[in-house]
Amino acid sequence: MLGSSDRIERLIQELTKMPTIGRRTAQRLALYLLKAPLEEVTALARAMIEMKKRVKYCSECGGITEQDPCVICCDPKRDRSVICVVEEPGNVIGVEKTGEFRGLYHVLHGRLSPLDGVGPEDLSVDSLLDRVKTLGIGEIIIATNPNVEGEATCNYVAGLVKPLGVKVTTIARGVPMGSDLDLADEVTLARAIEGRGEIK
Amino acid sequence: MLGSSDRIERLIQELTKMPTIGRRTAQRLALYLLKAPLEEVTALARAMIEMKKRVKYCSECGGITEQDPCVICCDPKRDRSVICVVEEPGNVIGVEKTGEFRGLYHVLHGRLSPLDGVGPEDLSVDSLLDRVKTLGIGEIIIATNPNVEGEATCNYVAGLVKPLGVKVTTIARGVPMGSDLDLADEVTLARAIEGRGEIK
Repeated sequence: MLGSSDRIERLIQELTKMPTIGRRTAQRLALYLLKAPLEEVTALARAMIEMKKRVKYCSECGGITEQDPCVICCDPKRDRSVICVVEEPGNVIGVEKTGEFRGLYHVLHGRLSPLDGVGPEDLSVDSLLDRVKTLGIGEIIIATNPNVEGEATCNYVAGLVKPLGVKVTTIARGVPMGSDLDLADEVTLARAIEGRGEIK
Repeated sequence: MLGSSDRIERLIQELTKMPTIGRRTAQRLALYLLKAPLEEVTALARAMIEMKKRVKYCSECGGITEQDPCVICCDPKRDRSVICVVEEPGNVIGVEKTGEFRGLYHVLHGRLSPLDGVGPEDLSVDSLLDRVKTLGIGEIIIATNPNVEGEATCNYVAGLVKPLGVKVTTIARGVPMGSDLDLADEVTLARAIEGRGEIK
C-alpha cells in the first residue's frame, strides 16, 4: 500500500497492466497525477474513454480508423494494386512515415507464435485472400517483424497468397542505416550479404 | 497523426505529458488500450479520477492520505520526538519500507532548484518549524536526495532548524549495499570514507 491510500494503490495496479509500465514507473505516474491539475487528469481519462468509444479497426484493412472504411482504403490516389501486410496497426504508421509506399495495407493483428498460443486461425488472413481476389492485387509486400515469429508469419502468408498468382515480396533485411558494420550481428550481416544489390 | 484517428492522437498527446512517457511509449500504450477490453480502460480512467478526488496531502506532514491527518500522524505508536524530512511524498514509502524508522515525517514538496525557479518559499518549511516547536521534537533526520539540489535543500533546512536547539542529522551517504567498490564514483567513495564508522 502506498502511504495510507488504497486509491493510489488501485491506480498503480491498473497502470501496471499496461506494457512497459512496471511497479516503479506506475508509482511515479500515480504521484505525478496526484500533483497534476484536476483538468489534466480529467482530460487524460476522457481521452482514453473517447478513443475507446470512437476508434475502431477498418473493416477492409484492419488499420486504425474512426470512419469505416479508413481514409487510406477510401483514398482514390492510393495504388490499389499493391498491399503491404503488417503484423499490428502501429506498423502502418511506421511505413506511412517513410513516404515510400502509396499502396494499401493489410493488418494481420498478430504473428504466429505457438508459445503464446497464437496459430494461423488467429490472424486476419481470410480477409487478405478475399481482398487479393476481389481487388485484383498484383503485388503483396510482406513487412512482418525481422524475428523468428515474423519470419514464420511471412512464410505462412506467402504460401497462402502465391497460389493466387500474385507476386509476393518481403522488405529487405540488412544492416540498418547510420549504424556501424562492427555492431551488426551475424544473422543480420548474413542476410545483408544474401540480399545484396548490384551497383549499376 | 496516427493512421486516420484524431482521438488516438489526442490520447498520445495526453499520455506524453506524464514523466518517463515519450512519444513512442505513448503510442504503444494507446494501441494497447485500443486493443484492451473496454472494462479495463474504464477501470483505469475511473481509478485516476477516484484517486484525484479522494487522495490528498496530510495537513500535518504533507504525505499522501485519504483521511486527514494521515494514519502515520495519528498513530499513537509512532515516536513523536523524531521527524524525517523528505522531498516528495513518494520518499515516505521508501523509508517506510525499510522498517527502520518509527517516527513522523515531513514532506517538503520540492527541493531548492534555482534553475527550475524553485526557491525557499516554495518548500513547506514554515509548517516544519511549527511542528518542531509544538511537538517538542528532539531530532530531525534530513533524507533529501543525494545530489546537488538535495544537498542544498538539506543545508537550508538544517540552518533553519538548528537555532531551535534540535539535533539535526542526515542519512549516510556511502557505497550502496550489494554493489562493487570499483563501480562507486569518486564523490560517493569520498563521502563513504568521510562518514566511516568505527568497528567496535
